[in-house]
Amino acid sequence: MTREVDVAIIGAGTAGLTAQEFVAEKTDNYVIIDDGPLGTTCARVGCMPSKALIAVANNFHKCLFFDEYGISGANALRPDYSRIMAWVRMLRDEFTDGVIQEMSTFTDRLIRKRARFIDANTLDLGDERIRARRIIIATGSKPWIPERWQPYKDLIIDTDQFFELADLPGSLAVFGLGPIGIELGQALHRLGVEIIAFSRRKTAGGLTDPDLQTYAFEHFSKEMNIKLGTADIRRRLGNKVVVGCESGEWTVDRILLATGRRPVIQDLGLENLGVELDDRGMPPFDPGTLQIKDLPVFLAGDVNGQKPILHEAADDGTIAGYNTTAKRISCFKKRTPLAITFSSPDIAIAGLSHKELTTRGVEFVTGKASWEKLGRARMILGKAAGIARIYADKKNGRLLGAELMAPAGEHMAHLLSWAVGAGLTAARALTMPFYHPVPEEALRSALGQILKQIDDPAPDFRLELCQKKGDS
Amino acid sequence: MTREVDVAIIGAGTAGLTAQEFVAEKTDNYVIIDDGPLGTTCARVGCMPSKALIAVANNFHKCLFFDEYGISGANALRPDYSRIMAWVRMLRDEFTDGVIQEMSTFTDRLIRKRARFIDANTLDLGDERIRARRIIIATGSKPWIPERWQPYKDLIIDTDQFFELADLPGSLAVFGLGPIGIELGQALHRLGVEIIAFSRRKTAGGLTDPDLQTYAFEHFSKEMNIKLGTADIRRRLGNKVVVGCESGEWTVDRILLATGRRPVIQDLGLENLGVELDDRGMPPFDPGTLQIKDLPVFLAGDVNGQKPILHEAADDGTIAGYNTTAKRISCFKKRTPLAITFSSPDIAIAGLSHKELTTRGVEFVTGKASWEKLGRARMILGKAAGIARIYADKKNGRLLGAELMAPAGEHMAHLLSWAVGAGLTAARALTMPFYHPVPEEALRSALGQILKQIDDPAPDFRLELCQKKGDS
Repeated sequence: MTREVDVAIIGAGTAGLTAQEFVAEKTDNYVIIDDGPLGTTCARVGCMPSKALIAVANNFHKCLFFDEYGISGANALRPDYSRIMAWVRMLRDEFTDGVIQEMSTFTDRLIRKRARFIDANTLDLGDERIRARRIIIATGSKPWIPERWQPYKDLIIDTDQFFELADLPGSLAVFGLGPIGIELGQALHRLGVEIIAFSRRKTAGGLTDPDLQTYAFEHFSKEMNIKLGTADIRRRLGNKVVVGCESGEWTVDRILLATGRRPVIQDLGLENLGVELDDRGMPPFDPGTLQIKDLPVFLAGDVNGQKPILHEAADDGTIAGYNTTAKRISCFKKRTPLAITFSSPDIAIAGLSHKELTTRGVEFVTGKASWEKLGRARMILGKAAGIARIYADKKNGRLLGAELMAPAGEHMAHLLSWAVGAGLTAARALTMPFYHPVPEEALRSALGQILKQIDDPAPDFRLELCQKKGDS
Repeated sequence: MTREVDVAIIGAGTAGLTAQEFVAEKTDNYVIIDDGPLGTTCARVGCMPSKALIAVANNFHKCLFFDEYGISGANALRPDYSRIMAWVRMLRDEFTDGVIQEMSTFTDRLIRKRARFIDANTLDLGDERIRARRIIIATGSKPWIPERWQPYKDLIIDTDQFFELADLPGSLAVFGLGPIGIELGQALHRLGVEIIAFSRRKTAGGLTDPDLQTYAFEHFSKEMNIKLGTADIRRRLGNKVVVGCESGEWTVDRILLATGRRPVIQDLGLENLGVELDDRGMPPFDPGTLQIKDLPVFLAGDVNGQKPILHEAADDGTIAGYNTTAKRISCFKKRTPLAITFSSPDIAIAGLSHKELTTRGVEFVTGKASWEKLGRARMILGKAAGIARIYADKKNGRLLGAELMAPAGEHMAHLLSWAVGAGLTAARALTMPFYHPVPEEALRSALGQILKQIDDPAPDFRLELCQKKGDS
């Protein structure tokens, strides 16, 4: 049996569902194909349940400071791991149920099978075929266990499994201090799990600015047990596992693998598309149109191998949805980049990173902000901490990007990425309101430092003159 | 004895000290005169110590939800009022000590006396006179007890006295639900003080949008005991006091008076300036230059009778400092307005308020955002709550202002005020990054609603097209 459709979407995750919204406005004749668990990676095993666990951990952590300011009895507080995990799953189920309920309108357009390309217009689903004018690949990414660690699979927890744990292990080795490693590692540490984390480099949460990398690594090293080195699994020890790096060996209950995700492209039959695949098996695609070569096939979301960031996956879905239903294929600009790691303090990159600026050879100046002495920061975090580096065009002070680790950093990062996106210069940003007392105030000194380093003369005054009569 | 100076600044608060910074760059020959407590209203009795108390109260309040997500033992937590107040004072002293230490460079330019105008260039300090080329009045504002309540003064606590309390009263009537009333009232309620609050109108925290006013009033009424009516003091009852409004009488230990502040202008001898004073005793002044008529006298900070907002007082100080030392008097633009009440959720007005837009007869459309169903909002607040109204120019969708009560509202308000200040339209704002999951996401639906109501055609797409070749 062959079903003829206008658009076939492979994958009912964030990118696929966003594409579906767009496609469904143009045609009823589409299918969305997914044989995996529904509800999106973010809601099932990603951003949402992790934020719930982090909220519990940080609220519990704040109680450490209770005695200091006059609330007694905090030493009687006990985290009940199984109840915490049950609560996280309850919230998680609300999020995924919400997603799945909205899918009821798809009726028989949702096909719970595995798709494999026969050619660029045809998918084999086993017992049926789909012939589609255009196809969107939105199969996402998933955690990946290297071959040599497969024998220890039962001792390894990845993010697909983590939120299903009925209880938390007493001790846990965290491999990798990227966003997932530092978010979950710190949260579990704060809940009392004995954590030993490994990082190959002095950095955390995806930071690229050397100053920030050192600051963040040292900050987290004071709170948690972090080893600098290449982590490996040495051997089993009864129910436990011995892990190690260059500087020693440690026995832990389990390993949390947070070393990265890989696009889900195996078994998709991409080799039947008739284009050359790279050494990871990925076809070439245009990041502006998401089109694979000149084929009627589009690659949207985490599957494209770029950063697994939800709002970018959703944008991809929109672009793919547009381009599979429009007469003419269009190229779209990416939003100003924004990546946030929900550690405490938050880590974020807004606009261009230090590495991107350096790689591109941009001439930029840097302003530095610190929350180390900000009274309000102490109230938010329990103690004051955090720094930011803001980058601006050396010529005119136009803001290009920032890296930061800061109290309320998720919000500082939004403000800075919008300032970059709106094309503000440092001088212009200094004319914007900064309320008191807020963490945003710390950004001012960074902006002021930028003014002193740029080629264009700085205004001698941080308020704008009234318009003279006759000015438009 | 008469001392001749270039600039005399009356008042060593935020406005006066900011003016001093500017003046000191131009001349050594200035004086700053203050006979009151040093350290600024904000750091002594205002924004800073209140934020410390609010942080304690909100952290304690969060423990109410601990059992729900698996942390046991929260019922053993006890707030020790005297230790909490001592901690708040300790922080407060750090803030004020910091301010006072920076004043050591003033040496004999700081005069701890009371100043009174003899004429527009001459101040009488009792045992000496100051003759100044230019004078800045930066005497601030203070809480005010109406004449009829003076007999109950010993039962009334105002913000000048509040932070000196060794202990907290068991029950407290809060008169007024403006920023101070709702901030302190809610914090004390959350710490277990029995609060009965009075508001003459269904509003809170300075909101002007009728939808927001109702929402906020009803939200706080669910948490706290709030009476709609005109509060009055009825009589003493032993050590206590009977307060009432149209709907009844209640006996409380003390009254927190939060009905507003008044400029400190009595005894300044403003009548000797030779300009007509209004019925509050205020001289006329130009809000752009801060100059009083054509006199060499400038009015900076809370004393000008506008909103007591620190960053605006500091801007006033800068303008007055500039205009007292520059050859030519300049007019400066105000920053985009931003007012934040640190209740939970935060209340804020960013850009123009609903009332200002209506008064000015601006043609605007409104987009509505809600945090009521946002998962992340529940994690931040304990439960999801909050709404926003964003106002935009009906013609082109340019953002004009917003009122909100929202989780992380202080940060939503910064983002929106910067968007207003940068001149973004709703369409442009929608091309900015919104990470997931963050409270900022809720703003998107408000922006989307604006697009549907404006005269200019909305783009059918919330991403920008790539620039075509040849575009600059």
